[in-house]
Amino acid sequence: MFLSINKLPNNLPAAGKPDPKAAQALQEGLGGQFGEMRTMMQYLFQNMNFRGDAKPYQDLLRSIATEEMGHVELVANTINMLLEGASTPSEQPEELPLSIALESPNIHHFLVAGQSSRPVDAAGNPWSATYVYDSGNLVLNMIYNLMLEATGRLQKCRLYAMSNNKAFRATVSYLIVRDLVHEKVFAKALETLGVQWNKALPIPRIDTSGMKEVKELESRNLHNQMWTFTNETSGLAQIFKGSSPFDDGGKLEVLEGHPEGANMPFFPDAPQEYASGLDTELRKLAQHVHKTTGTTGKSKT
Amino acid sequence: MFLSINKLPNNLPAAGKPDPKAAQALQEGLGGQFGEMRTMMQYLFQNMNFRGDAKPYQDLLRSIATEEMGHVELVANTINMLLEGASTPSEQPEELPLSIALESPNIHHFLVAGQSSRPVDAAGNPWSATYVYDSGNLVLNMIYNLMLEATGRLQKCRLYAMSNNKAFRATVSYLIVRDLVHEKVFAKALETLGVQWNKALPIPRIDTSGMKEVKELESRNLHNQMWTFTNETSGLAQIFKGSSPFDDGGKLEVLEGHPEGANMPFFPDAPQEYASGLDTELRKLAQHVHKTTGTTGKSKT
Amino acid sequence: MFLSINKLPNNLPAAGKPDPKAAQALQEGLGGQFGEMRTMMQYLFQNMNFRGDAKPYQDLLRSIATEEMGHVELVANTINMLLEGASTPSEQPEELPLSIALESPNIHHFLVAGQSSRPVDAAGNPWSATYVYDSGNLVLNMIYNLMLEATGRLQKCRLYAMSNNKAFRATVSYLIVRDLVHEKVFAKALETLGVQWNKALPIPRIDTSGMKEVKELESRNLHNQMWTFTNETSGLAQIFKGSSPFDDGGKLEVLEGHPEGANMPFFPDAPQEYASGLDTELRKLAQHVHKTTGTTGKSKT
Amino acid sequence: MFLSINKLPNNLPAAGKPDPKAAQALQEGLGGQFGEMRTMMQYLFQNMNFRGDAKPYQDLLRSIATEEMGHVELVANTINMLLEGASTPSEQPEELPLSIALESPNIHHFLVAGQSSRPVDAAGNPWSATYVYDSGNLVLNMIYNLMLEATGRLQKCRLYAMSNNKAFRATVSYLIVRDLVHEKVFAKALETLGVQWNKALPIPRIDTSGMKEVKELESRNLHNQMWTFTNETSGLAQIFKGSSPFDDGGKLEVLEGHPEGANMPFFPDAPQEYASGLDTELRKLAQHVHKTTGTTGKSKT
Amino acid sequence: MFLSINKLPNNLPAAGKPDPKAAQALQEGLGGQFGEMRTMMQYLFQNMNFRGDAKPYQDLLRSIATEEMGHVELVANTINMLLEGASTPSEQPEELPLSIALESPNIHHFLVAGQSSRPVDAAGNPWSATYVYDSGNLVLNMIYNLMLEATGRLQKCRLYAMSNNKAFRATVSYLIVRDLVHEKVFAKALETLGVQWNKALPIPRIDTSGMKEVKELESRNLHNQMWTFTNETSGLAQIFKGSSPFDDGGKLEVLEGHPEGANMPFFPDAPQEYASGLDTELRKLAQHVHKTTGTTGKSKT
Amino acid sequence: MFLSINKLPNNLPAAGKPDPKAAQALQEGLGGQFGEMRTMMQYLFQNMNFRGDAKPYQDLLRSIATEEMGHVELVANTINMLLEGASTPSEQPEELPLSIALESPNIHHFLVAGQSSRPVDAAGNPWSATYVYDSGNLVLNMIYNLMLEATGRLQKCRLYAMSNNKAFRATVSYLIVRDLVHEKVFAKALETLGVQWNKALPIPRIDTSGMKEVKELESRNLHNQMWTFTNETSGLAQIFKGSSPFDDGGKLEVLEGHPEGANMPFFPDAPQEYASGLDTELRKLAQHVHKTTGTTGKSKT
Repeated sequence: MFLSINKLPNNLPAAGKPDPKAAQALQEGLGGQFGEMRTMMQYLFQNMNFRGDAKPYQDLLRSIATEEMGHVELVANTINMLLEGASTPSEQPEELPLSIALESPNIHHFLVAGQSSRPVDAAGNPWSATYVYDSGNLVLNMIYNLMLEATGRLQKCRLYAMSNNKAFRATVSYLIVRDLVHEKVFAKALETLGVQWNKALPIPRIDTSGMKEVKELESRNLHNQMWTFTNETSGLAQIFKGSSPFDDGGKLEVLEGHPEGANMPFFPDAPQEYASGLDTELRKLAQHVHKTTGTTGKSKT
Repeated sequence: MFLSINKLPNNLPAAGKPDPKAAQALQEGLGGQFGEMRTMMQYLFQNMNFRGDAKPYQDLLRSIATEEMGHVELVANTINMLLEGASTPSEQPEELPLSIALESPNIHHFLVAGQSSRPVDAAGNPWSATYVYDSGNLVLNMIYNLMLEATGRLQKCRLYAMSNNKAFRATVSYLIVRDLVHEKVFAKALETLGVQWNKALPIPRIDTSGMKEVKELESRNLHNQMWTFTNETSGLAQIFKGSSPFDDGGKLEVLEGHPEGANMPFFPDAPQEYASGLDTELRKLAQHVHKTTGTTGKSKT
Repeated sequence: MFLSINKLPNNLPAAGKPDPKAAQALQEGLGGQFGEMRTMMQYLFQNMNFRGDAKPYQDLLRSIATEEMGHVELVANTINMLLEGASTPSEQPEELPLSIALESPNIHHFLVAGQSSRPVDAAGNPWSATYVYDSGNLVLNMIYNLMLEATGRLQKCRLYAMSNNKAFRATVSYLIVRDLVHEKVFAKALETLGVQWNKALPIPRIDTSGMKEVKELESRNLHNQMWTFTNETSGLAQIFKGSSPFDDGGKLEVLEGHPEGANMPFFPDAPQEYASGLDTELRKLAQHVHKTTGTTGKSKT
Repeated sequence: MFLSINKLPNNLPAAGKPDPKAAQALQEGLGGQFGEMRTMMQYLFQNMNFRGDAKPYQDLLRSIATEEMGHVELVANTINMLLEGASTPSEQPEELPLSIALESPNIHHFLVAGQSSRPVDAAGNPWSATYVYDSGNLVLNMIYNLMLEATGRLQKCRLYAMSNNKAFRATVSYLIVRDLVHEKVFAKALETLGVQWNKALPIPRIDTSGMKEVKELESRNLHNQMWTFTNETSGLAQIFKGSSPFDDGGKLEVLEGHPEGANMPFFPDAPQEYASGLDTELRKLAQHVHKTTGTTGKSKT
Repeated sequence: MFLSINKLPNNLPAAGKPDPKAAQALQEGLGGQFGEMRTMMQYLFQNMNFRGDAKPYQDLLRSIATEEMGHVELVANTINMLLEGASTPSEQPEELPLSIALESPNIHHFLVAGQSSRPVDAAGNPWSATYVYDSGNLVLNMIYNLMLEATGRLQKCRLYAMSNNKAFRATVSYLIVRDLVHEKVFAKALETLGVQWNKALPIPRIDTSGMKEVKELESRNLHNQMWTFTNETSGLAQIFKGSSPFDDGGKLEVLEGHPEGANMPFFPDAPQEYASGLDTELRKLAQHVHKTTGTTGKSKT
Repeated sequence: MFLSINKLPNNLPAAGKPDPKAAQALQEGLGGQFGEMRTMMQYLFQNMNFRGDAKPYQDLLRSIATEEMGHVELVANTINMLLEGASTPSEQPEELPLSIALESPNIHHFLVAGQSSRPVDAAGNPWSATYVYDSGNLVLNMIYNLMLEATGRLQKCRLYAMSNNKAFRATVSYLIVRDLVHEKVFAKALETLGVQWNKALPIPRIDTSGMKEVKELESRNLHNQMWTFTNETSGLAQIFKGSSPFDDGGKLEVLEGHPEGANMPFFPDAPQEYASGLDTELRKLAQHVHKTTGTTGKSKT
């Protein structure tokens, strides 16, 4: 089971001006083959199907799977932020409030969704469970996961070089840093199983020293810290400890629980999209709900 | 963000004898078009893309999305339980320890995964994000969700009539009951927006009075209770309250947090599957990890 | 079986200037998840797989399935109208008669088809039979169909706000009206089975009062009329009668047969596309066919 | 537009005993790459996208497209006939009325549908619009269509050799004969455009002289007759006339309208499938509908 | 088995200026339904699954399959040539070296690949093995293959009319000519089996007399020559001989082995893409490899 | 370009008795996500899209890509061998010569193909180009390829434990050995770039000492030898030399050219499948072709 915490893992600044093209590029990070929906599902399956008496590795998978759920939320909200304001909030269809859709790389943002994110990649392909890798073999899973994180990080570094929109950059940079720390987790796991991951060189390596947002996050040691994403005991710290496996001088650190997080953004009604579609009358009904107090019992736990 | 609780939402009895056919049937509940991966993702997207000042509805979606994550775990573990023991734990390939795979409806359980669940449906189709519905329109989303839960419940009632394996029945029955309460949540939401869902008859209705496991669960009122699946305040109880919308005399109840839950089953090494693949030497290394104590800091939160 | 009537259900004005972007947007109405290929196939399957002694509902499905076949034709022809003139009818490839294709959102309109419609959605995804819903359960099918029509209508209202091209608007508006009447059919069917669809409010509701083309069609009561699309007796009128289920004051009406309809547009040869590809010599042969008279017997019926 | 005729194109005898394996094999003829959904959609698209002044060819496509719609119905009903009786009509789930599903090659017949046909092929793959070929080039379309019919016929001849179930054989044989006549139509069209299809040998050729059901149908000249499937004038007869293009001595014949046809089979309620799902109370409501008389107006046509 | 020859079958001039749109259009020739990956795989499967004592036809398939492998390479390299220079080779992400990606029709060229070709079509759909046709029936396979080559050629003629980029035109023209000769091969094969392919007219026919690059290639008789693409004896020449089956006066000719070919282009490092990603240190290591001499034994053959 | 060598890379003994289930299992090695079509295409794309001045790595990819082409042939022929004799070679359909198809896990082997291999995996999913990984980054590609080979080998070890059919085992064992040597190639490539792949333990490791066919092949040092699969100079030997990277004491060896290979099996006509479909008359024509001598010129090379 999981518990919801209604916060994003990182701050999400306003996007500046709307940018449907950057929004569509960022879809790769949500529904792409190396995006957050995939890492989340892959680690969840590896955790659920885990075999054998090696609980620290199973815990490690569970912690990262849980973190990735929050990344899914972060990317989706960033896409929504980039789309916000792209169409004109007019209720008069004669003024073509949605004409921007015909110029946008993913018309579905406006036509199928109500100006919001979609479970697809940057080329419009729907996410597919064929992406999920779980061989049942612990070592192979760890190698695959390391490669998966490294590829995800590579793609985010490419995204960084495509747009300097603030909201876009904040989220892309955060993911670059978190993907790095996840690479380290899987490299550490392999080290415990006998692979001298890297004596000589941090491999795979992608230099991010030119990215100021990334450097700022790293100055907070975010590239060496893992949260357990649980209030229970986790074996994660038995693996993720000591020095960084990448010879970058990092000191690995496990923190209990989750990052403090940032507030979820609020997205207003978009009547031109019929989203939420609450007109005056329905809104009145819905707001009536707001005011009433439901009786919440205590869970039996 | 989310937090992990390392428990299943319901008890999972041992399966009796292995049953790869029942396991494959149950895949529909995991990776099928109306299975738990889909409900989880659909409600998560509707929650992330929510528009407008109607937070109780957004909270409601978040609570159910979070509950569905635990259902994904429950179904996957049940499939694993049904597969357990299907192959012979011999390390001698000459004895054809995996020959059962050629008689099983989904050979991938044994060939691609290490005798465990897969993100596919009962006919072997991989889960696809094309299943996810989020129109951005609140009323349409609620109607779709009601139909989705009702179809999921219909399929589980059909599953119930296919096998009486204990583990299979326990999970299928639990989902029949939870799908019903989710139907009620969405029906209630529609009622707050002016639909008199059903004056005369509970519709859609499927009679489960002949299913003893279902009746036992309903005797604990599980078909009228919702958990918030968060430690924060939730607007769920502002909608889900009063009488059942289905004229079955139910008294709706919201409980804070999550069900007590049951222990995760343990699945042993399956050397014939090279899963986990830890041989004597690697196991020694892995167990060394067990014993070391990692230093876990306190999260900054 | 079916019989062909070589007419479109509604008038299709010339498009004005070619508009490949609007053409591609309209593909959602043809090959999209909530487009006409889907409604046609879904109702056809529900009709073919119908169980039980409840023929008026089976007839109702058959009538709408048949109407949707004509909608498929209407949308495809509208797309073709929007593409007409987009490329230059030169036979000299040096003049790059098809260079427009590189600027168009769906290059397949020009590269795979001969400047014409494709069985894909507005994002280029091919239509898939995974869209077809037929649970076998009458009530669930009716609820799904209602939701399907409402979502289709929502998407068409969004399309309306994207372009004011005349051909585009004529077809989109016609479908908005017909989707509404289909919503009413399924709501009526649910009412006969005990659901008080809506005592208080027309739900789902999308206000189209700002769309003049829609208003014109509604002034002819097209939003309250159903044709049987058969010359045989149909049970449709046993369900679709009396007042509109949506509290809009409509008086429901069933008409035998089909609308009068409008002429199919003619699309000339496009030699730059090698479509039809009949050169002087072949054209002579083909026209020879025109002149000969085939002997047609009388069907044995 | 199209009109419905509530009949099947050919007689459908009862299946004898239920045969889910034969049902699944026959799915190839419904949702397979060379099945009836494909021919129907391919010819419909070629008809809708037709270019140039060569109406007899466009009419020819329309006639066959319309015939294929009836074939879709014939195959779906045959599959349903083969499934009928496969599960036990008990309402007591303890008796495992649907246990047959676990032994069937397509569990979705029982789990997703209510013991009825699905839009998939014999291996369970959903039908996809990527199958539809329309190049815009008349000659290429005709060659493709000829190959398509010949491949469809080849597959049906293979199906014939897989089962001798009566309903299965009746439909498969009918399609073998109709595919042959469609091959002749496209070969004739190519002949009018200058191809001497076959001076020496009927090619492609598959000998069906050992199939008694096929011979019976051919004794009625069904392999040389085309219906126009319209009450309007059709150019079909300007192409399909004279001698068979396959040197089999056939005299081609066009008949106006459609075959007399046979009654649709009735499939009873299957309570174990919750299909239709009408219980005593709902059935009473539904039957009330039966008795009421709706007022049907005259179409404006 | 196969042997590599590290050359392209035809010269590939530099592209002039980068053109991501032309690159994406050309993807149809690589990963499209009628592109080179498909012809290669289709003929390979028909060759591997060949039945019966008719070796010249099996050899013929093998020769063409092998030729198509080189076409895959030619098209991929041409796409890469068209992409070369599209992004700015800066290592400073602040300068947005990859901003071109947001304006390109296939962002995956820059985001998933390192500014290079992808196994997808011009609309971005990944290549699928559902395209591969192998009925097992020799005559049907030959007819399908003829149609396949003719459709491929039609699409390339359309591509020709979309861009006059030099690299693009060189490759498209080469394929137009080779597709024609492949059409002739399959037509010849059908002639040996009794089809008088065309007494009167070359069918299918597409006039390419206005394409100067095509004419130049035809002046070298490339439209009547086949290579065996093997050093062994091939039965190809027993079928492909005598006059062209298309009444264009051609004299068919089989040449042993393969065309002389042209050098593979070299694509430099693109640091902005982290492709190849070898930084100073890694490059030094890689270049060390260059200098060392590996000991190569003689194959046992 | 490539040249064909009409041999298989390894001996293929007769299958013993037909085994459609083993045939279907082996499809994973052909069209599966980690099968030979995938490795072939992945290395081909990485070779074609190669960037930078590091030719030995590009050569290495080309050699393995070429070897994989032969593996595709080996697996397809093995599947055909396992299917041979599964149906009864009767031309009398009344005797149901293809009834075996209804009991087989992939009916398409008999219905779509003519009792032969298909480009799908063991669960029937068609091969998809979404499997192909080419990031453009050399190090990441090498890590991915190592993981890919290791996963392929894992799956083949599982296959080995499913059947002891002779043909099946011969091919599976051969691939287990070749996958191992390919793992070594990519591990070596990583070592040249600074990764100390494994100081302590061969990882990933799967013990095959209980597989006698594998041991026999290893006794010939096949697990340490690479062929260049070209007659040209290759940089492969600059990387693949010295000791095995897996601490198994192997001495790496590069051989020029290709293995001697074994004869392709011959598969006879299957009239019950209409494959090849040559009847008496057509066979006479085809055999006439055999006897004629085509004039083969010398290639201009």
